[in-house]
Amino acid sequence: MIVKTNIRVIYGDTDAMGQAYHSNYLKWFEVGRAEWFRASGKTYRELEEEGIYLPVVEAHCSYLKPAFYDDLITVATEFSFAGPARLRFEYVISREDDLLTRGYTVHVCVNRDRKVMKPPEFLRTLLDAARETL
Amino acid sequence: MIVKTNIRVIYGDTDAMGQAYHSNYLKWFEVGRAEWFRASGKTYRELEEEGIYLPVVEAHCSYLKPAFYDDLITVATEFSFAGPARLRFEYVISREDDLLTRGYTVHVCVNRDRKVMKPPEFLRTLLDAARETL
Amino acid sequence: MIVKTNIRVIYGDTDAMGQAYHSNYLKWFEVGRAEWFRASGKTYRELEEEGIYLPVVEAHCSYLKPAFYDDLITVATEFSFAGPARLRFEYVISREDDLLTRGYTVHVCVNRDRKVMKPPEFLRTLLDAARETL
Amino acid sequence: MIVKTNIRVIYGDTDAMGQAYHSNYLKWFEVGRAEWFRASGKTYRELEEEGIYLPVVEAHCSYLKPAFYDDLITVATEFSFAGPARLRFEYVISREDDLLTRGYTVHVCVNRDRKVMKPPEFLRTLLDAARETL
Repeated sequence: MIVKTNIRVIYGDTDAMGQAYHSNYLKWFEVGRAEWFRASGKTYRELEEEGIYLPVVEAHCSYLKPAFYDDLITVATEFSFAGPARLRFEYVISREDDLLTRGYTVHVCVNRDRKVMKPPEFLRTLLDAARETL
Repeated sequence: MIVKTNIRVIYGDTDAMGQAYHSNYLKWFEVGRAEWFRASGKTYRELEEEGIYLPVVEAHCSYLKPAFYDDLITVATEFSFAGPARLRFEYVISREDDLLTRGYTVHVCVNRDRKVMKPPEFLRTLLDAARETL
Repeated sequence: MIVKTNIRVIYGDTDAMGQAYHSNYLKWFEVGRAEWFRASGKTYRELEEEGIYLPVVEAHCSYLKPAFYDDLITVATEFSFAGPARLRFEYVISREDDLLTRGYTVHVCVNRDRKVMKPPEFLRTLLDAARETL
Repeated sequence: MIVKTNIRVIYGDTDAMGQAYHSNYLKWFEVGRAEWFRASGKTYRELEEEGIYLPVVEAHCSYLKPAFYDDLITVATEFSFAGPARLRFEYVISREDDLLTRGYTVHVCVNRDRKVMKPPEFLRTLLDAARETL
C-alpha cells in the first residue's frame, strides 16, 4: 500500500535561498506517515491512546530538486519492517512529474514508560495487511 | 528587571523574502521569557516541576525592521502583572541600535489539570522581587 | 468573502504541554491568507511575480482553547483595508463548533526594493471585489 | 578541527511526547555548521556574499536518546570532503556525557544561478586548513 498526500508549501517553509528549507521534509514525511496509518484503518493518535508510541530512531533524506513557495507537492509513503521490532517507512516527494526528495525513517515501538517493546499482535496484523494492500 | 539575551538568526529562520519569517519572533519571545525566569532565580522548567504552567493566552508583535540571516539579535524582556492572575511580558528585539520588533504575551497560571489558578505565593513573591530589581 | 481552509495538526506542531505550540497559529493564519488570495482570483505567488510583496507589520493572536495532535482545524479568513496602504486580515480558527483562536495581521505593500507603495489599482479592485463577494 | 556550540532547547522545539521533535536536529546541525565556518575564518554569510552557496543534498540522523525542554545541548561539528565537489559535515549532539544524536549532511557548491561548481580555490584552501587544525 502506497499512500499519497498533497501538501502546499507555505512561506514559512521557505528560506533565504528561495526554496523549502531542508528540515521541513522530515515534517512532510510525518504527514505522509500519519496518512498512511489513517489509510491502514488505525490513526497514530489511536495507537497512542492504546499506549503505543513509535519514536523516530533514524531519518534520512536525499534532496534532488528544490520545492518552491506555493508548490503543491505529493508525498508517497510505503511501509516495511526493518526487523521484528523496527518499522521502516519510505517516502518519495514529488511535484507533478518531478522527483524532489527521497527518504526513510526507522521507528521503534515503545510503551508509555518509553520501554522498547515488540509491536503488539494487532499492530503487526494491521501493518502486514496494509503492506499487502495494493 | 530587564533581561537581555542574544540570539543568532539561522537559515531555517529565514524565508523567501530573505528575512526572518514573522512567526519566529514568538519563539524568540519565548527565549527571552525563559532567560527572564532563569535570572529571577527560578527556571520555567522548575515551575513546571512544581505543577505550575503558564500558557500563552494572547500574543502581539509589531514588526518595524527585518532581521536577516546570521544577524546577532538581542531580546530584552520585562515582566508586569496584567491582573491578579494574568502575567504579562514585554519584549523588544534589536540588532545593535536598530529596533526590529516590539511585542508582548499574556499568560494565565494553570495547574497540571489545566485549571486556571491564582499564582501561588512563592511565585508572586518571586515575580514582585524580580520586577523591582534593576 | 470569508474563505475557509482545513489544516491537520501534526506532531511537529505540538509541544511538551501536549497541545499545538502558540507560534504555529501565525503559520496557519498564513495558510488562511494564501487561500483567501487564491479564492480572490490571484495567488500571492502571482502578486510576487508582478513585484508586489505584502510583509506582515503587525500580528495578534488570542488563544481561547488548545488544538491537539491530529485535530482537523479550520481557519476562516476575512479581508479589510486598514488605511489606504495597509491591508488587514482577520482569522478565526475553530475545531468543529469550538472556537480555538482569533487573530489578525496587518500588511503593507512594498515593491521589489522594499519601498512601501500604495496597492496598485488592479490589486485594490481585486481586494474590493473579493471583500464584497458573499 | 571540531567546533562545539551550545544550544538551549526551547518549548517550541518539543513535541507532545515531551521531548525535542526530530526535525529540529537538522536545524541544530545547521547551527553547528555555521559556527564551524565562523571558526574557520569565513562565515557562511560571507561565502554567500561572494556568490557561493552550499545547499544540502543529503542528510542523515540517528536518534539515540531524547533531548528535553530547557536542556543545554552541545553540537560538535567536523568537516571532510566527500569528493572533489561535495562537502560533508558530521555532527554529534550531546548533553554532558550523554550522546543524544549523530548525523551528517552532504553539500554541493553552487553559484548564484544554482549551477553546481567546484569549490573555488580559496574555499578549498580554507577547508583544508580548518580540517587540519586541532
